[in-house]
Amino acid sequence: MADESHAGLIALDWGTSSLRAYLLDSSGAARESRSWPWGIQHTPPGDFATAFRTAVGDWRERWPDVPAMAAGMIGSRQGWREVPYVDCPADPAGIAARLLAFDTGCGTLHLVPGVMQRGALPNVLRGEETQVVGALALEPALADHSLLVLPGTHSKWVNICRGRIERFATYMTGELFAVLREHSILGRPARESGPAVGEPIHEEAFRRGLRIARESGPEGVASRLFTTRSLFLAGDLPAAQTLDYLSGLLIGEELRSVVAGFGGAACPPLVLIGEAALCGRYAEALKECGIDRLQVLENTAPAGLWQLAGAAGLLPTHSIAPPRGPAHA
Amino acid sequence: MADESHAGLIALDWGTSSLRAYLLDSSGAARESRSWPWGIQHTPPGDFATAFRTAVGDWRERWPDVPAMAAGMIGSRQGWREVPYVDCPADPAGIAARLLAFDTGCGTLHLVPGVMQRGALPNVLRGEETQVVGALALEPALADHSLLVLPGTHSKWVNICRGRIERFATYMTGELFAVLREHSILGRPARESGPAVGEPIHEEAFRRGLRIARESGPEGVASRLFTTRSLFLAGDLPAAQTLDYLSGLLIGEELRSVVAGFGGAACPPLVLIGEAALCGRYAEALKECGIDRLQVLENTAPAGLWQLAGAAGLLPTHSIAPPRGPAHA
Repeated sequence: MADESHAGLIALDWGTSSLRAYLLDSSGAARESRSWPWGIQHTPPGDFATAFRTAVGDWRERWPDVPAMAAGMIGSRQGWREVPYVDCPADPAGIAARLLAFDTGCGTLHLVPGVMQRGALPNVLRGEETQVVGALALEPALADHSLLVLPGTHSKWVNICRGRIERFATYMTGELFAVLREHSILGRPARESGPAVGEPIHEEAFRRGLRIARESGPEGVASRLFTTRSLFLAGDLPAAQTLDYLSGLLIGEELRSVVAGFGGAACPPLVLIGEAALCGRYAEALKECGIDRLQVLENTAPAGLWQLAGAAGLLPTHSIAPPRGPAHA
Repeated sequence: MADESHAGLIALDWGTSSLRAYLLDSSGAARESRSWPWGIQHTPPGDFATAFRTAVGDWRERWPDVPAMAAGMIGSRQGWREVPYVDCPADPAGIAARLLAFDTGCGTLHLVPGVMQRGALPNVLRGEETQVVGALALEPALADHSLLVLPGTHSKWVNICRGRIERFATYMTGELFAVLREHSILGRPARESGPAVGEPIHEEAFRRGLRIARESGPEGVASRLFTTRSLFLAGDLPAAQTLDYLSGLLIGEELRSVVAGFGGAACPPLVLIGEAALCGRYAEALKECGIDRLQVLENTAPAGLWQLAGAAGLLPTHSIAPPRGPAHA
C-alpha cells in the first residue's frame, strides 16, 4: 500500500487549549490533520493517555514504526511529563538534543523541551520554540537576523540571530483581554448586550484604541484603559464596539512597548506567525506604528516538529529539508 | 434631650461594595457610624429603599428634620437614581448646586452628582468628588495647588487648582489586580496554595515588583507582567509571594505612568486619601519614585458630605466649617 511507505512522523501540537495532530508523509508534508479541544487544561487529570490513544491510536497501529513527537504545554509541569527547559540562546540542534522520550502505553512519544531565558527577568517558551524552528526551516532567509512575533494568549516576540533564538519577550495581551472582557467593568456593556457571536469587527473602534495607545507615549495605556468605560458612559462608544476598542488599546500597548524597546533602532525583518485573523489585527496595529514590511506564516508547528525529528535522528532519511508548505490547522 | 439638638446631617457614603452611614452632629463631627456590605452591586435590585430604611430608619424617625445626603455609585445609572455629572473643572459650590433630591419613602434623600471631564479622553468621578471636597475642607492649604490620590479599585489622581477639581486621571490598578489574581495564570500559584487570610505581606516581594516596574522605563510593565509567572517557574519567587510581587508591579506601573506624565516637572504637594494599609503601600511606592513628602487622610467622605450640605443650604446654620476631624470608617 502506497500510503504506508510514505508516513514519516506523527506530529502533535498539544497546548493549553487544544490538541492538534498531523500525519506527516516521508517528505514532511501533512497528509492528514485532526484537532480536538483537549488542551492540557481541558483533559481530565491523568487522562492524557486516553486523549493520545483516541487522537492517534489508529495511526500508531497502522504505522507502528513511525515516531511520534509532541510540542507545547503537554511537556510542562501541568502536562503529561515535564521536560526541563533548554537555556536561551538556543538553536534547533540544541532543542532536538533534549527531547524527552517515554512509553505512553500506545508507543513511545518524544516531547519537545521549552526554552528558558535566565537572568533577573527570566522568560519561558513552551511550544513556540517549535513554531520558530518551523518558520526558520520554511524561510531560511530569516535565520540571520529577524524578529518573529507569535500573537496569542501570551504573545511572544522572538529575536533570531544567526540561526539561534537569541532572546524573547512575553506580552500577556490575549489573556489580559480575556479576563477584562469576562470579569472587569470594561466588559460589562458587551456582556449585558448579549453574545457577540457572528458580530462584525468594528474596525474603526479597534483603530481608535490603537491610536489612543500609541499617543499615550511614555505614560502607556495604564492611564487610558478606563476610557473603555468613560467613552461608553459619555455616549461616545456604543456597547457593541467596546471590546474592539479594548482590543485596540491592549494590542496597541504591546506594540508601543515593543517599539519603545527598540530605542530608536530600526525594526528587524518581522514575521507574524499564527492564526490569520489575529495576525491581521497585529499587521494593522504594526502599520499604525509605521511597520508595514512584514511576512505572515500561518501554522509552522508541523514543520518545526519535522525539523526537530530530523535533527534528533528520528527520521529514516535524517532529512532536514522543510516540508512542502505550511499545513493547515 | 441634648442629643436631639445636636444632630446635623445623616451622611451616606454608598459605593459599589459597601454602604457607610454617619450621624453628624450640628458641628459636623461624626457622632455615630455604621457600615454594611450593601454596595450597589450587592443590594438586591430595587431594594435600595429597604437597605436605606434598615441603615438609617431609626435616625430619620428620631430626627425627622435632619437632612440626609448620599455620595457615590448610588447616584449612578446602576444606582437608585441617576444624578447627571457636573462638568470638570468643578468646585464644591458647583457640585452642591446640582444635588438630586427625591422622596425615598423614608424621608427625602439628596444625592451628590459625579464629575465628568469631557473631551477626547473623557473621565468620571462618582463618590471621589465628595472625598476631595472633604479633604479641601479639612486641609484648606491644599486648595491652591495639590494632587490628591485616592487609591482603590479605580485609583483617581485629582489635580486641584485654586479650589477647583481641575482635571483627573483614572488607573484601574485595584481591579486589574483582582481579576489577575482570581482569573489569570499569574494568580494560579497563590490560588492553588490556598487562601491567604492572615498571611503576612511580603514586603520584599512587593518592593521587588515596584523596582521592576520603575526600571521598565518607557516600555512599561506590559513587557514585565509575565515575570510574575516566569520568576515562579524559575524557582526565584515562592507561590506565597507572587501576589505581593504582582501588586508591586501594578502599583509601580501606575506611579511610573504618573511620573512620566509630569514630563520632568516637580510633583505638586501630594495627599493620599483612603484606607490606611493601601495608602501605606502607595506611600512606599511613591518613596521608591523619589516622592516622600506626602500627607495621608483616612476618611474624608463625611467631611465632604457636611461641606456640600452646607453649600447647598441644607444646614440650619449654613455652616461651611469643616467637622472636627476625620471620622473613622
